[in-house]
Order: sequence, then C-alpha cells, then structure tokens
Amino acid sequence: MFSKILIANRGEIAVRIIRACKEMGIATVAVFSEADRDSLYVSLADEGVCIGPPKVQDSYLNMAAILTAAVQTGAQAIHPGYGLLSENARFSRLCRECGIVFIGPSPELISLLGDKDTAKRTMREAGVPVVPGCELVQDEETACREAQRIGFPLLIKARAGGGGRGIRLVEHLENVPGAFQAACAEAKAAFGDGACYMEKYLKQVKHIEMQIICDHFGHVVCLGERECSVQRKNQKLLEESPSPFVTPELREQMARAAAAAAGAVQYRNLGTIEFLVDSERNFYFMEMNTRLQVEHPVTEMVTGLDLVKWQIRVAAGLPLGFTQEEIALSGHAIECRINAEDPANNFLPSCGKISLLHIPGGPWVRFDTALYTDYVVPPYYDSLLGKLIVCAQTREEAVRKMRAALCELVIEGVTHTAELQMEILSDPEFLDGTYTTGFMEKRGLLC
Amino acid sequence: MFSKILIANRGEIAVRIIRACKEMGIATVAVFSEADRDSLYVSLADEGVCIGPPKVQDSYLNMAAILTAAVQTGAQAIHPGYGLLSENARFSRLCRECGIVFIGPSPELISLLGDKDTAKRTMREAGVPVVPGCELVQDEETACREAQRIGFPLLIKARAGGGGRGIRLVEHLENVPGAFQAACAEAKAAFGDGACYMEKYLKQVKHIEMQIICDHFGHVVCLGERECSVQRKNQKLLEESPSPFVTPELREQMARAAAAAAGAVQYRNLGTIEFLVDSERNFYFMEMNTRLQVEHPVTEMVTGLDLVKWQIRVAAGLPLGFTQEEIALSGHAIECRINAEDPANNFLPSCGKISLLHIPGGPWVRFDTALYTDYVVPPYYDSLLGKLIVCAQTREEAVRKMRAALCELVIEGVTHTAELQMEILSDPEFLDGTYTTGFMEKRGLLC
Repeated sequence: MFSKILIANRGEIAVRIIRACKEMGIATVAVFSEADRDSLYVSLADEGVCIGPPKVQDSYLNMAAILTAAVQTGAQAIHPGYGLLSENARFSRLCRECGIVFIGPSPELISLLGDKDTAKRTMREAGVPVVPGCELVQDEETACREAQRIGFPLLIKARAGGGGRGIRLVEHLENVPGAFQAACAEAKAAFGDGACYMEKYLKQVKHIEMQIICDHFGHVVCLGERECSVQRKNQKLLEESPSPFVTPELREQMARAAAAAAGAVQYRNLGTIEFLVDSERNFYFMEMNTRLQVEHPVTEMVTGLDLVKWQIRVAAGLPLGFTQEEIALSGHAIECRINAEDPANNFLPSCGKISLLHIPGGPWVRFDTALYTDYVVPPYYDSLLGKLIVCAQTREEAVRKMRAALCELVIEGVTHTAELQMEILSDPEFLDGTYTTGFMEKRGLLC
Repeated sequence: MFSKILIANRGEIAVRIIRACKEMGIATVAVFSEADRDSLYVSLADEGVCIGPPKVQDSYLNMAAILTAAVQTGAQAIHPGYGLLSENARFSRLCRECGIVFIGPSPELISLLGDKDTAKRTMREAGVPVVPGCELVQDEETACREAQRIGFPLLIKARAGGGGRGIRLVEHLENVPGAFQAACAEAKAAFGDGACYMEKYLKQVKHIEMQIICDHFGHVVCLGERECSVQRKNQKLLEESPSPFVTPELREQMARAAAAAAGAVQYRNLGTIEFLVDSERNFYFMEMNTRLQVEHPVTEMVTGLDLVKWQIRVAAGLPLGFTQEEIALSGHAIECRINAEDPANNFLPSCGKISLLHIPGGPWVRFDTALYTDYVVPPYYDSLLGKLIVCAQTREEAVRKMRAALCELVIEGVTHTAELQMEILSDPEFLDGTYTTGFMEKRGLLC
C-alpha cells in the first residue's frame, strides 16, 4: 500500500480523499493555489504545497508544479479527484514517467474513452447499445434509406457541428431530403465542412449511469445505477440510487452492458458508464467517465462500500475484496448539490464569506463539504459548496429525510441552491420518478 | 400518527428526537430552562416553552410545568429522551391522566422493572438467567449450605447495604461463617438491619445489553447487542455493536433470553436488557432499562433502523414494520462519548464557551450533538458534549475510522475526553476485544 498520496484537487473532494487516506494510514499532501491557502482540506492534510496563483491554468492544471510537489514530498501516488486533471491522458502519462501511480486508468484508456466517436464505435462493436444512427451520408437517396432504417424522429447532424448549427430534427420520411440539404448547406456555411450523419432523436430520456470498479486481475464488478436526470444545461443537480425508473430486469441488462463495456477495453479502476434511457426502457451508451464522480456518495450509501478507499486499493494493485454476487443494494440514497449560485438570477455564481454555517446531522445524513464558518468562497473555482446526502430504507423516507436536512442546513453569506432543491423534492414529477432530463425546464424550475 | 410531540429533554437527545419528528412530519415543542434559552434544540423545534430556572428540579424534573406546556401547546405525546423523567413511573401516569401519550412503557411496567429485586425475581421465574444467589440467610449453617450450592467466590451482601458497607468477598467454604458474622454485624451497626443474602461474585465480566422493541400487538423483536464494558464508575464511555466477544450462538441465546424477559412482563416500546457476561460466556440478567439509551445509535448503524422513529410509531399504536427474521445485522459500529470532563483532573466537569468547533464528516461518520460555535456549555447538566459514531464493514476498519474522526474533531473552549478515547482505541486489550468492566482501571486509563 502507498505510504503517501498527493491530492491534485481542492474543496470537498480533497477533504473526502484525505479522510479516506487517514483511515487507511496513508500520509497526505495537499496542493493549493494562493487563493486556497486557508482551505479546510489544506489544514486536514499532513503536508501542503502551494502550486501557483489562483487561476486553475496556473495552479490546479499546472502539471509540472503538481508533479514537482509530488516528487519533492515523496508521494507515491496522485489522486486527481474529479474535473481538473482527472481525465487528462497526458497527466496520467506524465505520472507514469515520473514513477508515480496515477489513481485512475492508464493514459491509453483515458484517451480511448475520452474520444467520444472512438468510444462509441468500440462499444457498438462490443455489443453495447449506442444511439442508433449511421456514418456520414453522401446524398439524399442514402439519407432516405438510412433514415428508414434508423426510424423517426431523427436528427441530421453536422460532423463539425456545435452551438446548434447544422442540425435538423426530422419527423417524417418526406422531409428527409429537404432537411438533409438544409443541414449540409448550413454546416458548409458555418464550418466550411458540409458532412452530415444521422442519429435517432431520443425524446423524454433519462440519464442513468452505472458505477463499475475493476481491479488488475480482470475482476469487474457493477455497483448499481445512479439516476442523474435532474440537470440544468447538462450539469447534474440531484442524484439518486437506485433509480425509481429502473426495474430489476433493466438493472440486470444495464449491469451486463456496463460490464461488457468495461471488458471491451480491459478497463481498470473506478469508472462510470453513462446511458440514456427512453420511456420504453431502451438504453443507449452515451460516454464513459474514467474517474471518481461527484455523485459517488449515493452509490456508497446503498452498497456500503467506500469507493475512494477501493479506488486507492485497486490502484495499489490489490484485488477487489468482493464479487458481483456479494453486492447487495440496500435502501435509497439521494444527493443534493448545494451550489453557490442564484437560481433567481440565471444561476449567477456567488462568492463571499460564510457568515453562518449549520450543517445538519443525525442518522444517515452526510454533508460532504469544505466549508467552515468565516471561510471565504473564492471566485475562481466551480460553485459546489457541498453535497447533502441522505439514505433511508425507502425512497419516500429518503425524500422526507432530505427535506428535513435541507430545512436544517444554514449557509449564510453566499446565495445558494438549497431552496431550489426543496422545490425539486416537492415536484409531483420528481416524486413519481418519471422525470427526464428536460424536467427542470419543463417544470419551470429554472426561473 | 401524532401531529405534535413535546420533547421533555435537552441537549443532543432533544436534537435527535426533533430531527426524527421533522422527517415524520410531526410538529415539535421544546421545553427549556432559563439556562438553555439559546440551545440548538430550542431553535430547531417549532415551538419552545420555558419551564423554569436552570436547576433540573425546577425545570426538567418539574412535571407540572412540563405537562402544562404540553396541554397549552396541544402536544399529543411527550418523548422523555433518556435520564430526567424517562423512567419516572409517576410522570408516565400523569401523562396518561392528562390524556397525553408517554413515549415509553406504562407506569406499571416502569415501576415493576425499576424495582431491581422485583425485576430479578420476575426474570428468574421467566427462565432468564440472573446472578446465582439466595434469599436472606438466617444463620451460619444455612449460609454454608447455600454457599456450596452457589459456588465460590461469592459475596455476602447486606439487604440494606450501600457504599461498600456490609459486604464480604468469600473465596473458600471455611471462611463463610466468619465472613457471614462480620457482614451481619457491620450491616447491623451501619444500617440497623443485619439481614444478609449471598450472590455469586463475577470476576472479569462484560456489560453487554440487548436492544428490544415491542409493539402493542405482541410482536417482540431483538435488535442485537451492544458491548458497553468500557466504563468509569458505571458510566459508559464507549460502546460498540456487535460485541467482539459475542459468538453467534451466544447472541442467539441472549436474544432468546431478552425476548423471554420482554414477554414475561408483556413489555411495550423500546427497551434494553442489560446482562453481565463472564469469561465462559455465561450471562446473567442485571436490569432492564425502559427508555431510549444514550448508545442507541450503534444499533441503528448495524440494523439500518431509526430507533427513535420506531419508538414514536409504536407509541402511536402502529405495528412494527419488520419481523425478527428480517433483522440482518451488518457492519460494525462504535460510539465514543465526548464529555466535558478533564481526565487528567479526576474527570472534573468543565464548562464554558465553545470558541472553535469542527465536526468530522464523510461516509458513515455521525456526531450527535447540540454544540455550535459560541455556544456556552452550562454548568447545571450532564457533561455529554456529543456522541461520535462511526460504522464500517469490519471492526478493524471501524476502529481506524473512529481514530481518524477523533483526530479531526475540534472542540475548543472546554476540556473534554476525545484524547482519552484515542488512548482507549489504541489499547491492546480493547483491540483484541477481551476487555471487561474493569478495563479502564486495570489499564491505567483513569489518571
């Protein structure tokens, strides 16, 4: 086992990783920007190294500074947390070259899975369902033939597309030729590249992801799903496990697909396979995340497994201490992200001094945070103030527990999203579990 | 279900009960002494009523003031917490007479089980093992005969005894007559009553208690044991569940005995049967507590059940939602009591303003407390500042987790027992699980 780990991250996830290390008897090195000198995670770590000015480019993305800190402090491994360098193949490679273990997959795996086209092709070949579609289409005739195969509604999308340009939604076959011409022309004009392909348009989809963990001995274990459909601009706001929409049969199918995806690339360490699930419970591979997720605690609560500790153990070359058969999902967990944002003002980020803080407690209530009274939330980083996590025996009881915990939570000094979370938890579409990724907009919760 | 409950208690247990009520949608009334006006539990409750001056006799033991508050606020039930009025038969009876539900057993059950002699006799008759002994002995000859039946070592004890007077430890038969005469004479001189009885002397015993819960439909469910042998002057300092000493067979036997004890008196609500367990794993009924215990969280962590919620549901007349067969104990939980006492100064109580507070967090770490920064610990009440509770898959991991959590805990402004708990958690006799009630003294942890 490692005797010292450097945490190449900040905030609540640095606190989370340091706590896991302390329990494992592993010394910790915090790296911090000049803006994070007084952070909780820095005071909890055994050592701290300043790696540069506040801006992430100069500090938390400064690979040379971080690797130098690791070498100088004698850290044997680096935990990248999430975001920042966590899915950076070059950083993973540099760690390897410096003789330091990157706690995550190899640079080759990060590259492979980070390229969404390659990842999708790999998954399709491994038999994992991906959104039905076709390769680039050259003419109207082919477009019509492929459209009939894919089915309607479908999207015609520009290869070089972005920002909604070069994209057409088509509901009927007779509209394919016109839409194809329009999309190609628009793409050509906007990007200088008129090449288009087609993809089934999924309405009313849910974002449901499977957590897997793989050791270096070929063991792949799936730790159930997380339902992450409560989103704003593709940013998750609330997650739960299990999903109220997933039946035992679907869970079984998705777990098999997740294991096939991991097997296809000989995946190592903790990973998440994100799927879109339509109203008929068809599911399609979207992407694979090669890191610890923000929302990992809901999986911890229902499996009883400490994912950060297992991530470290696997990176150190230890085999998984459990088999798929030994994984029993129990209870229902919900996580609410509390962000320093103003929902009444287009989610404008908020920063400032925490003048009053009261963290709720009691049985099965957890608040993963780096806040303390008088802490100054800096303006340079992401807006996550903390993650409120609860677990109970049923979903209904978990919702009640979360509401009570949100009512008890006091964070004064910055504007945040706790009240918005209360609204979500009171919405009938949330309560009946049918909500899809369009939920926040549809229910008018974004203004 | 009740719509409003009054909590006739203070501090962390009032916070605990209020949280449970909030999750159940039940309004709460806090009662407080003049010294507790700024308490956390008062601010968390929906209503608060001042019931008198700081001294407990004038406030928290003032039954008239508490019942008046309940009637005036329209509370349908009173939760007494632990200590104070929680095992007061008269209070339970007064509640009944006022048409208010006492969340605990009937006055008759409290009376029956509060009288230790009657309780022991009842248990013996129900086939529950009690410490072997005899009734009052009239002469030396009877003493010798009974002594041979009981076995050695044994204690000759004065019926009216107390403070160590009128008590003799006897190792051999030939010493019985002399010791009997001496004990009788000493008792006669000290208490004016020379009557003595005899009891087997248990060396190296463990204090292990079984948690039971009973509804009004005759269902009795045992929720496993708690090992409470880390004590100072009969005050528990650290508790764990399961006990490292209890085998599955012993657990089964003790659970059966606990159920028999509950059945013998037709017990209702939450209860704890305390046993002494000797080194050969013989166990003997000591007493039955008819209330929520301070250490209830360790049972919650390994059973997944919220004991306070179930206590309220049962008091409201609902049946238990689980059977004995459905109770699966999982993982290992430890609780450390953090008291405002100075272990270096004969556990002198400490009070004052909390100048700095940092509560540890992360997965399966819970701190039940009523502390907040700038709170002033008053001098009038018991010294419990909070209960640090952890749970992990194995005992070894739970010990590591507790150590890390204790290291992270910061309470400045009062002297407390967190460092003493670290010493306990590092002691080889604690770690191998063989520790008995003499542990703290034997290991030199009390100075």
